[in-house]
Amino acid sequence: MPSEPATLLGPSYASDAVRATLDDRAWLQAMLDVEAALAGALADAGVVTSAQAEAVAGACDAARFDVGDLARRAARAGNPVIPLVADLRVLVPAEAAAAVHRGATSQDIVDTSLMLLGARALGPAEAGMSRAIDAAATLAQRHRLDLAPGRTLLQHAVPITFGLTAATWTVGLVDARTTLRGARRRLAVQLGGAAGTLGALDDAGISVVERVAERLGLAAPPLPWATTRGRMAELTLALAIAAGAMGKVATDIIALMQTEVGEVREHGCGGSSAMPHKRNPAGAALVVSAAHQVAGAAGVVLAAQLQAHQRSAGTWHAEWEPVRRALELTAGSAERLADLVEGLEVDPARMRANLDLTGGLVMSEAVAGALVAGGLDPAAAAAAVSRCAAQAVASDKPLAEVLAADPSVAGVLDEDTLAGALDPALHLGSTDAFIDRAVAYARDDLGGATP
Amino acid sequence: MPSEPATLLGPSYASDAVRATLDDRAWLQAMLDVEAALAGALADAGVVTSAQAEAVAGACDAARFDVGDLARRAARAGNPVIPLVADLRVLVPAEAAAAVHRGATSQDIVDTSLMLLGARALGPAEAGMSRAIDAAATLAQRHRLDLAPGRTLLQHAVPITFGLTAATWTVGLVDARTTLRGARRRLAVQLGGAAGTLGALDDAGISVVERVAERLGLAAPPLPWATTRGRMAELTLALAIAAGAMGKVATDIIALMQTEVGEVREHGCGGSSAMPHKRNPAGAALVVSAAHQVAGAAGVVLAAQLQAHQRSAGTWHAEWEPVRRALELTAGSAERLADLVEGLEVDPARMRANLDLTGGLVMSEAVAGALVAGGLDPAAAAAAVSRCAAQAVASDKPLAEVLAADPSVAGVLDEDTLAGALDPALHLGSTDAFIDRAVAYARDDLGGATP
Amino acid sequence: MPSEPATLLGPSYASDAVRATLDDRAWLQAMLDVEAALAGALADAGVVTSAQAEAVAGACDAARFDVGDLARRAARAGNPVIPLVADLRVLVPAEAAAAVHRGATSQDIVDTSLMLLGARALGPAEAGMSRAIDAAATLAQRHRLDLAPGRTLLQHAVPITFGLTAATWTVGLVDARTTLRGARRRLAVQLGGAAGTLGALDDAGISVVERVAERLGLAAPPLPWATTRGRMAELTLALAIAAGAMGKVATDIIALMQTEVGEVREHGCGGSSAMPHKRNPAGAALVVSAAHQVAGAAGVVLAAQLQAHQRSAGTWHAEWEPVRRALELTAGSAERLADLVEGLEVDPARMRANLDLTGGLVMSEAVAGALVAGGLDPAAAAAAVSRCAAQAVASDKPLAEVLAADPSVAGVLDEDTLAGALDPALHLGSTDAFIDRAVAYARDDLGGATP
Amino acid sequence: MPSEPATLLGPSYASDAVRATLDDRAWLQAMLDVEAALAGALADAGVVTSAQAEAVAGACDAARFDVGDLARRAARAGNPVIPLVADLRVLVPAEAAAAVHRGATSQDIVDTSLMLLGARALGPAEAGMSRAIDAAATLAQRHRLDLAPGRTLLQHAVPITFGLTAATWTVGLVDARTTLRGARRRLAVQLGGAAGTLGALDDAGISVVERVAERLGLAAPPLPWATTRGRMAELTLALAIAAGAMGKVATDIIALMQTEVGEVREHGCGGSSAMPHKRNPAGAALVVSAAHQVAGAAGVVLAAQLQAHQRSAGTWHAEWEPVRRALELTAGSAERLADLVEGLEVDPARMRANLDLTGGLVMSEAVAGALVAGGLDPAAAAAAVSRCAAQAVASDKPLAEVLAADPSVAGVLDEDTLAGALDPALHLGSTDAFIDRAVAYARDDLGGATP
Repeated sequence: MPSEPATLLGPSYASDAVRATLDDRAWLQAMLDVEAALAGALADAGVVTSAQAEAVAGACDAARFDVGDLARRAARAGNPVIPLVADLRVLVPAEAAAAVHRGATSQDIVDTSLMLLGARALGPAEAGMSRAIDAAATLAQRHRLDLAPGRTLLQHAVPITFGLTAATWTVGLVDARTTLRGARRRLAVQLGGAAGTLGALDDAGISVVERVAERLGLAAPPLPWATTRGRMAELTLALAIAAGAMGKVATDIIALMQTEVGEVREHGCGGSSAMPHKRNPAGAALVVSAAHQVAGAAGVVLAAQLQAHQRSAGTWHAEWEPVRRALELTAGSAERLADLVEGLEVDPARMRANLDLTGGLVMSEAVAGALVAGGLDPAAAAAAVSRCAAQAVASDKPLAEVLAADPSVAGVLDEDTLAGALDPALHLGSTDAFIDRAVAYARDDLGGATP
Repeated sequence: MPSEPATLLGPSYASDAVRATLDDRAWLQAMLDVEAALAGALADAGVVTSAQAEAVAGACDAARFDVGDLARRAARAGNPVIPLVADLRVLVPAEAAAAVHRGATSQDIVDTSLMLLGARALGPAEAGMSRAIDAAATLAQRHRLDLAPGRTLLQHAVPITFGLTAATWTVGLVDARTTLRGARRRLAVQLGGAAGTLGALDDAGISVVERVAERLGLAAPPLPWATTRGRMAELTLALAIAAGAMGKVATDIIALMQTEVGEVREHGCGGSSAMPHKRNPAGAALVVSAAHQVAGAAGVVLAAQLQAHQRSAGTWHAEWEPVRRALELTAGSAERLADLVEGLEVDPARMRANLDLTGGLVMSEAVAGALVAGGLDPAAAAAAVSRCAAQAVASDKPLAEVLAADPSVAGVLDEDTLAGALDPALHLGSTDAFIDRAVAYARDDLGGATP
Repeated sequence: MPSEPATLLGPSYASDAVRATLDDRAWLQAMLDVEAALAGALADAGVVTSAQAEAVAGACDAARFDVGDLARRAARAGNPVIPLVADLRVLVPAEAAAAVHRGATSQDIVDTSLMLLGARALGPAEAGMSRAIDAAATLAQRHRLDLAPGRTLLQHAVPITFGLTAATWTVGLVDARTTLRGARRRLAVQLGGAAGTLGALDDAGISVVERVAERLGLAAPPLPWATTRGRMAELTLALAIAAGAMGKVATDIIALMQTEVGEVREHGCGGSSAMPHKRNPAGAALVVSAAHQVAGAAGVVLAAQLQAHQRSAGTWHAEWEPVRRALELTAGSAERLADLVEGLEVDPARMRANLDLTGGLVMSEAVAGALVAGGLDPAAAAAAVSRCAAQAVASDKPLAEVLAADPSVAGVLDEDTLAGALDPALHLGSTDAFIDRAVAYARDDLGGATP
Repeated sequence: MPSEPATLLGPSYASDAVRATLDDRAWLQAMLDVEAALAGALADAGVVTSAQAEAVAGACDAARFDVGDLARRAARAGNPVIPLVADLRVLVPAEAAAAVHRGATSQDIVDTSLMLLGARALGPAEAGMSRAIDAAATLAQRHRLDLAPGRTLLQHAVPITFGLTAATWTVGLVDARTTLRGARRRLAVQLGGAAGTLGALDDAGISVVERVAERLGLAAPPLPWATTRGRMAELTLALAIAAGAMGKVATDIIALMQTEVGEVREHGCGGSSAMPHKRNPAGAALVVSAAHQVAGAAGVVLAAQLQAHQRSAGTWHAEWEPVRRALELTAGSAERLADLVEGLEVDPARMRANLDLTGGLVMSEAVAGALVAGGLDPAAAAAAVSRCAAQAVASDKPLAEVLAADPSVAGVLDEDTLAGALDPALHLGSTDAFIDRAVAYARDDLGGATP
């Protein structure tokens, strides 16, 4: 069965593989997987027979259901489980009908299937992020020494290397992946029956929950969580953090690609025969777009935490689509970002040229430091640098030239010392160590990861 | 061509008609409608020939395009217009190819087609709201005198009538519809070319914008608005206000339907053969759910207003899907709310019974007023009522009985006067006038509406 | 009485004047103004005596109350009106005590006072926006012909002028101001008494509402709107649109100020003696920051629309602080943006230099047009330009030179025609007309404004 | 020095103690604490002398600074650190001036001080939550057997006990506290200098970061995180989850307190002498209100993750106030919720009476089960129960009576068996075990907690 067509103006333009994990048919199958696991767990606990459980499981195939018809009836019933269970009961042999959905309520199936979708979509999301992390760590090492202007509030501040930028991406992505993995471990079965007591299962309830959890690869919660939505919030917020960490990388790429900066370029970035100078950050723009949308989805789930009694009227329903969408956007974003960082074209010469745009002014802090080391008092050092810098700007001369000609500077710093103070490569502080730490951070984290 | 299947866990469970207005194919057609209108406008302005424009318009039929393939190529290009225009150029005769998309840029087509989708979806949204307004105004008149407890912070406060509740719904919905109509008038063509100058159209630019606007039934803006997103924000926020006003009505219905209150009931509300006492507010829950989701979509569009230069990288892209979704959720919600209010089953006897639950305590304010009118000073009146009320609660007796037995009350109020003070129907203040005003408000507004 | 100190890490760093309009003392005074207006209206309607009303009004001076003590008692009572009314009753002579807060409930006072704060803060907000609009319109005219690169996705696209950028700001700000003015007209009295019937005022209710409205300069609503929150949402959303429109201008300024672009500069922008090349967009950053925060406040108010019955428990309370904050942030932002646009330093030479950065490639679209006009078929024209552009990039030569040397181009375009095709000033399309329209839009709007 | 006055319409009405942890003066002191720790760490690393460090630390006392003046200058500078450092340099002896703020940039101080505020406010937040958890666990045990209706979509579903409700609160709060503790561990020093290289500290950078972290009790990050905002997002989102978990409890309390339900009551809940029947959930409403506002703050921080280069212009600034506010709202909410749950008045008799409101219909599921156990096939059992239930509703008779009179039921179930099927206490499923698990969950978690 083919997956649904890609969405024309879709939020993520995710790959066919990701979409096939999350589309309507995938959701239907996830709900059926929950019903099958429930039947199996009921058999394990002796509540139904193995034959009944097998009959139920055998019918739990999305291909045997009509998604469109279910959706129309779901709209009337208020959720999709009511028509789904009705159809499932018809599909199984009469003697197994009583084993269908036994002890469960609609919310049990919807919530657990959403957790299952989460588990399935987090795989590609993490895989994409891991590829992006590897690629960023590689860039950090490769461009460890490639000087570039550090920019704050979009102004040149002091020199950095592009390796440090990539190292920062690495750490940000590793942390976000850790958050995602934490959320993965919290994905749990929801099974409480009509009002959270598992009243229809007598003493077997907790054992059934545990067997369902085992069968689906989800956690078994201490209690049903039908109206304590922390797990759903954690999942969605972890997605928003992951999408945000990826969005930060994309934001940098867009900023570094702009015509006046030109330090990096998306591989195969959208050009135009009519405007051959344009290097559209098409992929990065979509990653940024996804971050905004996932933040919006997270806001819905956060505001929906206030759920009354044993099942909420409306706020629960508000979660379904935003959670699915956040999963798709994040997984799609991860695929795209991985391609983007792996294929990133870096122009160290342009970085160096940009660093020189201010005629050495980015080194003024270092020169002041050298003057103090040379014996000037800090206020005098600052005044000297400030005066020379202003003169350099006014006269459009390199700062080096102005400094060399200034008696109060030349009297303190000899030619070599001044040259050293003006050499960005000598003023990178902890850059090298930070890059090592970032690479180790990524490597150690990968080592400790469970597949 | 059939519309796409309903979404299984869709946000709105909107009708097939609404979904057909907003699905991928509808969006594709809207983009083609914009291309056709542009070609026509170019012909009007003499930039292309009529024959060329007709050839372009003739090819602008969504059925001739492959949505899935466009979507996959859109993912690479960064937006759907690039592959769409390429395919459209192939479809038209060679001599018309130069007239395709002439002077326009991708964003022009996406933005204008979103405005067009907006115009098309606001129709059913307004129609549904108008049905709900009519139904609410009818309820207001029908239940003008049906006493019920007014509730603040979910506590009984003083008597109201159910008519007043329905009148309040009426006014809230009328105001929200006005907001929607205001947003409708602001839906405008976006046409600026590569960077907002319409540079490829020489002097014809503004005239072409005006003709496109005329052809599509949209406003012609003073300037292109590619990165001034007020119009998009206004549309989405109007939807969020409309969804919220509908959500308030649904919130009341859910609260009034609860087992312990039982004052209204959704017609045909989801029951259960196993739990025949359950009256699930299935429709109202979905309207509440929609309000939460549209608020989330609005948040994305609000945060996306900060768009740089002449086209933004990412924040613009973030708007597409949330706007479409907000349209679908609001229009779907309006359909559902209309059914809900039209079919609402009201139980005035239960309202009256609930009003009596506190044994007359809801009238304590009125009794205090009567005592003052009878000559007691306010502090003494308050003290007397407070004392009697406490005694009524402690002894589980009706307040009337305790008051009649209290000398400081009986000395001031004769039997008839006391009975009057305790009769909720005599203490409704402006309720009747408010209902008249609400009905007039709905009627006048409908009268003044343009179709 | 001095206003409260500015907030150290405050959201808006608004002026003392704006803060004095919105701080705790101002809010207290607004609540007292509502109580005074109510007493006056009750006297107008004959419910209380003029002497009583005057006594109440006389006591309604914030200086006579202890804000800190009220706040502590408010925390216990759940809102500030309960302790406020208690203190007010003590302050007035005994014979006027009964006229205090007569017929009203806490929510009436809080809601109406918030509307009053809104009315008071919208003044400076509009004034600031109007100054920014004037300044932007002036920039549009002054820089009408100053060529600059148009940028899409941060890539150079085709030429614009800086005047067009300023014209776009103008229109965006005018539209946002119109939205704010619309919200101003919707600011209304909320007065319903204990449950929205004005039951304690018998027949006088509507007349009292109208007189309160008149006294406070607010609208009189058709019905109390205690749980239909459209008005509060409209106010907050208008603020979010205004803050967003201002944030767009600030976003452009930040982007245009960056070291590599350097086309504009904040007047007196934060420098550093150690880093004299830094031109920090300190003001613009705060305007952007405000836009994000107001969007967050709007999200709270949107999600809080679902209020049950006659007064909501919690969602109503959630509105207070976000609304106040949105007012302060927007008004503060308007002051700051006005200064920013009025003082903006513009560097047309740098714009022109940036436009030339791509060696004429920004004109490739125009050259292709000229070739078609000269008789080449569109495909051949595109191919020729594409080939020359690629060669220009590869050889690092100006496009003009490559084109002149290309036989297929030179055969069609003579030297003058080619020069014309490459002259950005000749390809500005509707730029001039758009600037005129923006200036007229701002002027007409100002003319039509009511004070 | 007294803390600032409580805010009149403040978001949290937090205690004086909480506000004193987060107000402007506390923030100022936190920034000074960071400067002092930095000076100490620089001395540890030999970059400055101990005497210099001590001189700096000695001047870092908020009482020596003028908050209002700093705030005004901060508004011009764009952040508060610039004027703060200027004043601090004046306060220290001349020979220590060079040790002030050495190697740091403004963002280092603001970010680290926000983390410090976070650490300080999470203490009271966790303490309040722990009190609420203890109280909820106690309620769970005390009301283990107190029958109440389970409610889904506000309709009675099947029986639960109030102990189960309290157990659900317990687990929800424990999980949220765990999330908060996780965020606490992620609170880290931000120290990178002008552009994240710590360039001014040569090789000493990382060692200085580690010593600052140690001195402040924060984590030392692998790299500066000036534009990778995961830590700030995690903190705020943990607060939103905590506020949401508390809001869920408050939502239940409000719903259970309503006049028609009356199963619980806030201790000392806001009454009214005029309306003595009103039991306003004043505290619970504020907890709900806080949850909405913290969700809004979290939305701002999420959307602000997209920060470019080495320091962002605007999105960074947007975080400050929302983070502070989220801390105050959550800590204030925790205090209030603790009081609320500790003082909750529970009415088991009313619960039981409510359970009986539907005349036994809540047991229909159990009766159907008994019929199947007795040998009826499931369809026949369902039909019989459905028929009897309908008849009970129509005739307004107890279900028990109708069932006893129905031959198809009486033929299968003897009197005792039928009575058993109708006894709610016999159909509680895993309720008892769930309560045990919740209590153990709370206890174990407390055991493992670090102070």
